[in-house]
Amino acid sequence: MSSESAVNEVVSGVKLTDPTAEARAWERLDNLTKPSRSLGRLEHIAARVARVQDTDHPTVARKIILLMAGDHGVVAEGVAMFPQDVTWQMVANFAAKGAAINQIAASVGADVRVHDVGVARDISEIAGIEHVKIAMGTANMAHGPAMTREECSQAIMVGVEAAEKAIAQGYTLLGIGEMGIGNTTAASALTAAFTGAAVEDVVGPGAGATDEILARKVAVIKTALLENGVGGLDALGVLSAVGGFEIAAMTGVVLGAARAGVCVVSDGVIAGSAVLAAVRMCPAVADYVFPSHRSAEPAHALQLAALKMEPVLELDMRLGEGTGAALTMGIIDASVRMISGMLTFAEAGVSVPE
Amino acid sequence: MSSESAVNEVVSGVKLTDPTAEARAWERLDNLTKPSRSLGRLEHIAARVARVQDTDHPTVARKIILLMAGDHGVVAEGVAMFPQDVTWQMVANFAAKGAAINQIAASVGADVRVHDVGVARDISEIAGIEHVKIAMGTANMAHGPAMTREECSQAIMVGVEAAEKAIAQGYTLLGIGEMGIGNTTAASALTAAFTGAAVEDVVGPGAGATDEILARKVAVIKTALLENGVGGLDALGVLSAVGGFEIAAMTGVVLGAARAGVCVVSDGVIAGSAVLAAVRMCPAVADYVFPSHRSAEPAHALQLAALKMEPVLELDMRLGEGTGAALTMGIIDASVRMISGMLTFAEAGVSVPE
Repeated sequence: MSSESAVNEVVSGVKLTDPTAEARAWERLDNLTKPSRSLGRLEHIAARVARVQDTDHPTVARKIILLMAGDHGVVAEGVAMFPQDVTWQMVANFAAKGAAINQIAASVGADVRVHDVGVARDISEIAGIEHVKIAMGTANMAHGPAMTREECSQAIMVGVEAAEKAIAQGYTLLGIGEMGIGNTTAASALTAAFTGAAVEDVVGPGAGATDEILARKVAVIKTALLENGVGGLDALGVLSAVGGFEIAAMTGVVLGAARAGVCVVSDGVIAGSAVLAAVRMCPAVADYVFPSHRSAEPAHALQLAALKMEPVLELDMRLGEGTGAALTMGIIDASVRMISGMLTFAEAGVSVPE
Repeated sequence: MSSESAVNEVVSGVKLTDPTAEARAWERLDNLTKPSRSLGRLEHIAARVARVQDTDHPTVARKIILLMAGDHGVVAEGVAMFPQDVTWQMVANFAAKGAAINQIAASVGADVRVHDVGVARDISEIAGIEHVKIAMGTANMAHGPAMTREECSQAIMVGVEAAEKAIAQGYTLLGIGEMGIGNTTAASALTAAFTGAAVEDVVGPGAGATDEILARKVAVIKTALLENGVGGLDALGVLSAVGGFEIAAMTGVVLGAARAGVCVVSDGVIAGSAVLAAVRMCPAVADYVFPSHRSAEPAHALQLAALKMEPVLELDMRLGEGTGAALTMGIIDASVRMISGMLTFAEAGVSVPE
């Protein structure tokens, strides 16, 4: 079976969630010892986890960030602030637990599993990461597709399998995160292609670009969209043309989690482009995806609007790595403990309004 | 020594924080393995904890919510939706770990310590709480001061001592929370008195008031402010006249934490009125206070503006109990682990921008 067929099989296996499960959750929420609906967004989050898990006593006790790393041929166009070596150096830093995601994930009790999906260097000697490399980085999207459809499908299946492995190990909440120098260019291109937004509106500073780099990013993305004829492509075609290995792998995590009936938390603008691709390939996955923060990167707000998702946090972050997903896992954990662990008015012997 | 003298001694013991400690923290933050300032609010939070703790490797490993409970004589005016018995019933529910704060605090690894400062019933038989009752609820503020200055000072000292006890036990981050049927009326009155806002603008639905109750709240607060001549009172006088035992105790936690050089996290609109009182009594405490969420209750935004504090979370919550403080402790914990646990570019061998 080709990898593309495998992806199609995953897509066709995603089931719609059941609204009656959510209705039962709201009935429970409205009987817990608190003024009705006084926990605002927490109640909505709890109700949706309950819907996905089909129980009014959901759990997200075991959490993991599936962090996908890959390099981008488009850095040859001078679109990135940091040198490409930073991708593998940061992978080593993740393995050494020295990066932001290691600390932030630890703060919410989440594990971090790092995958080399397409880093442009042989890093097989780095211990403590998953070696699932498909290629030494993508091709330069300005001169043709970043990946072939087969390569892109392989990367998606890396994500599907990472999700399935984590779920088989007992994780009940997955988060996506990424590392890849140059990947805001890919995410911006995907956002323009999937939402129809103007390229000028989806390009932002990324890891700290100058005005000169910004202008180059706009020009390169316009060239790439035109060169690859993305207007005529299906979602997998768009993702192959202007995406990246780590982005496709995150798309796969979303598809794999949804097929298994497990909640998955998005991150910032790069993860958001992966979620957009997953939803375009399979609209039913949207029920399983929890937005996290609103990134300071402008394309993120456009993605969230297209996905009709309201971010949980707004902390002016723009790092990636799954840092927003991890913080949001803490809020989801609180919401779920609330619905599952609180007593009802009757159980606690607390009076109701007169 | 009178309790008022004891309060004055605490106030005069609060020291200003050192801006050079914050400058050292920013120097460290800017050398950690992430694009400069890419963690937004988390970096500001980390820098302020570093300033308070006077170290660029701060810690908030041990966290506790100091939850203060008290009743309000003003409920005789029909300003509350729930019957007064709900105050002690919820205290029993906190002790049984059946309330929202028990679950949400657990989600961030925070302990909860409940204090009966002024519950209108003998609940000495309830185990697992601190029995520090000053009176069986406040007097009705519509007909005179809710508390005498001495009673109010005693309640403040209950909070100071609760903070000191927790700090002596090794807690490095305190949060405040409360329970008290009718206490949005007290918080609204305090907000009007301390900020000069119109009474109509500081009154909201609380635990779910009807339009009729809302109109009564406005009328009662206007009467109470006039009857007690709050315009001519000092901060302690205002707090005595229209505050509450649990609110004064939270003011004491803020003062006690600040004197000991420990960070304290606020909660919603009731806790915010306690912070306002603390800052009016002692402006230097502001450096030690971390805002949490923006409550759905309208007075809260006015308090935050008067305190020049930007909330960390905006989740449409209006429960109290310290639930917003607990959630925010999770974000503070993440921020502090980030600054203290991440590696620098040099330590991790990661390249910097070309």
